[in-house]
Amino acid sequence: MNEMIWIVLGSTIAAVFGIAIGVLGPALAMGRAINSALEAMARQPESERSIMRTLFIGLAMIESLAIYCLVIILIVLFKNPLLAYIVN
Amino acid sequence: MNEMIWIVLGSTIAAVFGIAIGVLGPALAMGRAINSALEAMARQPESERSIMRTLFIGLAMIESLAIYCLVIILIVLFKNPLLAYIVN
Amino acid sequence: MNEMIWIVLGSTIAAVFGIAIGVLGPALAMGRAINSALEAMARQPESERSIMRTLFIGLAMIESLAIYCLVIILIVLFKNPLLAYIVN
Amino acid sequence: MNEMIWIVLGSTIAAVFGIAIGVLGPALAMGRAINSALEAMARQPESERSIMRTLFIGLAMIESLAIYCLVIILIVLFKNPLLAYIVN
Amino acid sequence: MNEMIWIVLGSTIAAVFGIAIGVLGPALAMGRAINSALEAMARQPESERSIMRTLFIGLAMIESLAIYCLVIILIVLFKNPLLAYIVN
Amino acid sequence: MNEMIWIVLGSTIAAVFGIAIGVLGPALAMGRAINSALEAMARQPESERSIMRTLFIGLAMIESLAIYCLVIILIVLFKNPLLAYIVN
Amino acid sequence: MNEMIWIVLGSTIAAVFGIAIGVLGPALAMGRAINSALEAMARQPESERSIMRTLFIGLAMIESLAIYCLVIILIVLFKNPLLAYIVN
Amino acid sequence: MNEMIWIVLGSTIAAVFGIAIGVLGPALAMGRAINSALEAMARQPESERSIMRTLFIGLAMIESLAIYCLVIILIVLFKNPLLAYIVN
Amino acid sequence: MNEMIWIVLGSTIAAVFGIAIGVLGPALAMGRAINSALEAMARQPESERSIMRTLFIGLAMIESLAIYCLVIILIVLFKNPLLAYIVN
Amino acid sequence: MNEMIWIVLGSTIAAVFGIAIGVLGPALAMGRAINSALEAMARQPESERSIMRTLFIGLAMIESLAIYCLVIILIVLFKNPLLAYIVN
Amino acid sequence: MNEMIWIVLGSTIAAVFGIAIGVLGPALAMGRAINSALEAMARQPESERSIMRTLFIGLAMIESLAIYCLVIILIVLFKNPLLAYIVN
Amino acid sequence: MNEMIWIVLGSTIAAVFGIAIGVLGPALAMGRAINSALEAMARQPESERSIMRTLFIGLAMIESLAIYCLVIILIVLFKNPLLAYIVN
Amino acid sequence: MNEMIWIVLGSTIAAVFGIAIGVLGPALAMGRAINSALEAMARQPESERSIMRTLFIGLAMIESLAIYCLVIILIVLFKNPLLAYIVN
Amino acid sequence: MNEMIWIVLGSTIAAVFGIAIGVLGPALAMGRAINSALEAMARQPESERSIMRTLFIGLAMIESLAIYCLVIILIVLFKNPLLAYIVN
Repeated sequence: MNEMIWIVLGSTIAAVFGIAIGVLGPALAMGRAINSALEAMARQPESERSIMRTLFIGLAMIESLAIYCLVIILIVLFKNPLLAYIVN
Repeated sequence: MNEMIWIVLGSTIAAVFGIAIGVLGPALAMGRAINSALEAMARQPESERSIMRTLFIGLAMIESLAIYCLVIILIVLFKNPLLAYIVN
Repeated sequence: MNEMIWIVLGSTIAAVFGIAIGVLGPALAMGRAINSALEAMARQPESERSIMRTLFIGLAMIESLAIYCLVIILIVLFKNPLLAYIVN
Repeated sequence: MNEMIWIVLGSTIAAVFGIAIGVLGPALAMGRAINSALEAMARQPESERSIMRTLFIGLAMIESLAIYCLVIILIVLFKNPLLAYIVN
Repeated sequence: MNEMIWIVLGSTIAAVFGIAIGVLGPALAMGRAINSALEAMARQPESERSIMRTLFIGLAMIESLAIYCLVIILIVLFKNPLLAYIVN
Repeated sequence: MNEMIWIVLGSTIAAVFGIAIGVLGPALAMGRAINSALEAMARQPESERSIMRTLFIGLAMIESLAIYCLVIILIVLFKNPLLAYIVN
Repeated sequence: MNEMIWIVLGSTIAAVFGIAIGVLGPALAMGRAINSALEAMARQPESERSIMRTLFIGLAMIESLAIYCLVIILIVLFKNPLLAYIVN
Repeated sequence: MNEMIWIVLGSTIAAVFGIAIGVLGPALAMGRAINSALEAMARQPESERSIMRTLFIGLAMIESLAIYCLVIILIVLFKNPLLAYIVN
Repeated sequence: MNEMIWIVLGSTIAAVFGIAIGVLGPALAMGRAINSALEAMARQPESERSIMRTLFIGLAMIESLAIYCLVIILIVLFKNPLLAYIVN
Repeated sequence: MNEMIWIVLGSTIAAVFGIAIGVLGPALAMGRAINSALEAMARQPESERSIMRTLFIGLAMIESLAIYCLVIILIVLFKNPLLAYIVN
Repeated sequence: MNEMIWIVLGSTIAAVFGIAIGVLGPALAMGRAINSALEAMARQPESERSIMRTLFIGLAMIESLAIYCLVIILIVLFKNPLLAYIVN
Repeated sequence: MNEMIWIVLGSTIAAVFGIAIGVLGPALAMGRAINSALEAMARQPESERSIMRTLFIGLAMIESLAIYCLVIILIVLFKNPLLAYIVN
Repeated sequence: MNEMIWIVLGSTIAAVFGIAIGVLGPALAMGRAINSALEAMARQPESERSIMRTLFIGLAMIESLAIYCLVIILIVLFKNPLLAYIVN
Repeated sequence: MNEMIWIVLGSTIAAVFGIAIGVLGPALAMGRAINSALEAMARQPESERSIMRTLFIGLAMIESLAIYCLVIILIVLFKNPLLAYIVN
């Protein structure tokens, strides 16, 4: 069962670096969205409601991308379907 | 069946890094689109409806790119057609 | 049939990273196009129709580039013509 | 039990670099969000309340991304589910 | 016929990465062209016709570059002239 | 006990580079936050109190990210839970 | 004739990556040229004729650079003069 | 005791490069903070006191990040806790 | 005559990548020159003649750089003077 | 005593590159600080005294970062505490 | 005379990449010079003569840099003085 | 005494590249400082004296960083203290 | 005399890449200097004489840097003083 | 005396690349300094004398950095003090 070592090692390292790289894009995108929401709010305080609604929809869309990344990594860590070819 | 190790290991690592890199572009593009939607809303609050419609179409187009990426990765993880050349 | 391993492994990894890199450019381009469409709409709300038409044509052209990338990858995954030199 | 060395070594190095890379994006995004909150506050001091509320929601969303990263790393360090294939 | 493996593997990986890198430049160029077309349309709505004509010529020129790239890759995948030195 | 060498060496190098990379993002983010706080203060000297409050909350949030990084590194240096699989 | 493998493999990979890299510069340059043509047209709609003439000359000059690249690659793929030293 | 060579060599090189990389971020952040403090002082000379106070708090926060880095490196150079697993 | 393989392989790969990299700089420079010519034409339509003359001289100078690159590559492909040391 | 070679070689190379990289950040930060001091002085010549005071404090803080780097390198070159594990 | 292979191969590859990299800087510099000449001409059409004179002197100076590069490469290709140590 | 070769070779290469990299940061910082001094002088010619004084102090501080780098390299070239462990 | 091969090969490759990299910085600097000279001439046509004098001094200073680079490379190609240790 | 080969080869390659990299920073800094001198001269033609004086002092300071680099390289090429450990 020596070969499982490489699977475990590779999956673990990939999971850690994958989530670290995968949150980079969404984090920058969220920073930009919040940035512009605050600027818009400073220029048009009376339309706060529609700005907040747009911001929340946007943050949810961006968060969905980070969730895709997290889901793939959790599948790899907890229930990798490819392991069925080796373990049984 | 020692060679399956490399298939499993390579596919797993590629899937994790692929989704991490693949959400980078769509995330930045979404951040930019939301950014400009909020700026447009702050300059023309009365045309909120058409701004929201354009934003949603744009986010759907960008999301489609992330979905392409997710679909390829799910195919690789759960039902890789190339495995038919090895396993049977 | 040991050599098929490398074909399967290489094709799988290339497919995943190829789609991840291939959506980067179109995603950024779409973000920029939507960005400018929303800015144009905020400056000239009355010409919304022609802006939307130009935006849709542009998004379709950019999407076509991502489709080129997706098609090559699906060919590689499902029906690689080069495999005819090895398998038969 | 010589193979555990590589698991321990790889997981430790990945955990340290993973958290170092993983806080990069959220840190820059937070800097940008605080930046724009302070600018908005300087331009519209009377709407401090709604700016603070938006800023807190945004920081929480960004922090959630760093938490995803931290959680994956703590799982890897303290309770890696993949180790079950090797140790028992 | 062991050497065909490397040809197939190298060509497949090169094709996938080649199209992924090759659409990067045209995508960014198209984004920029559509960007400026929309800005021009917002500043001079009455000259929409000549803007659209220039935009279409430009997009066609840029698309031609992506087509060069696609053609070379399809030649490599389906009818590589260099294979005549090996296969027959 | 020759294998402990690699654990010690890898952990030490990872800890040093990890903290060096991990303070990069928070440092830049803090520089940006202080930058905007000083600009806001120069534009609205009378709202110094609320600017300082926002700045302190923001610096604390960013510092928390650097603390995450420091904590993981101190765990690795002083009490690495993964060593339990090797040493005892 | 084992050595022909490396020639075929190297030439094929070089051709694909060469065209992918070679269209990057011309694509960005075309995007910039079309960009400025559209901006110039929006500022001086009455001088459309001379703008179009300059744009076409410029696009032809840039296209010539991509053609140099394509020609070298087609020579390498279909009629490489250096092969005369090996094959005959 | 040949293995101590690698520990000493790795720790020394890591310490030197770690401090070199670790002061990069704080130095740039300090440059930015001082930059904005001087700009704020030039625009609002009468609020010099509160600008200086904010600047000092900010520089202390940034310096704390460099100190984290220095502390980890001094621990590694003078009293590495991981050496207890090897030396005694 | 086994060593000719490496000459042919190296020269072919170098020629393809050389032309791909070599057109990058001239393409960007041409894009910039055409950009400014169109901007100048939009600001001073009456001095079109002298702008066109300057642009053509500039494009010729930049094209000369790409020609240097093409000439070296054609020498390498068709009549490499260094081959005289090996072949005869 | 053959192993001392690697210690001496590694330490020497690390010291030289460490100081070269370590002065990069502080140099850029100093350039920025002096830049803004001169700009502030040009805008508010009468507040030269407080500008100079702030500049000196800032330069001292940045210089301290370069000194950290220099101190670690001098320790490594002249009195490396880790050598006690090998030499005696 | 097997060693001449490496000289020929190395010189050929270096010559091709050297000219490709060497025209990058001059091309960008020429693009910038022509850019500013056209802008200056659009702002001061009456001083066309002195602008052209300055531009030509500048282009000649930049071209001289590309010529240095071309001369070194032609020396290496046609009359490498270092070959006297080997061939005779 | 074969091992001295590596010391001499490593030290020489490190010294040359160290000084080349080490003057990069100070050179850019000096360029920026002189840049702003000249701009300040053009805006406030009457305060030339205090601008020159500030510029000289700044250039001396930046020069000190380059001197640190030069000193470490001269120590390595002429009187490396670590050589005492090998030579005697 | 087999070892002379490596000297010739290394020196040739280094000379070609050295001049290619060495003209990059001076070329960009010249482009910038000519750029600003033309801009200055467009703003102050009557002070053409002093602008030209400053430009020529500057170009000569920058050219001197490229000459340093060329001289070192010509020394290496034609009269390398270090060869005295080997050849005689 | 086979080991002298590596010293000669390493020193030669390092000298060529060292000077090529070492003139990069000073060249860019000079370009920036001349740039700002010309801009200052265009804005304040009457203070040409003090601008020229400041520019010459600045160019001399930057040139000194390139001279440091040249001196180290000439020491390595003509009179490397470390060679005393090997040759005698």
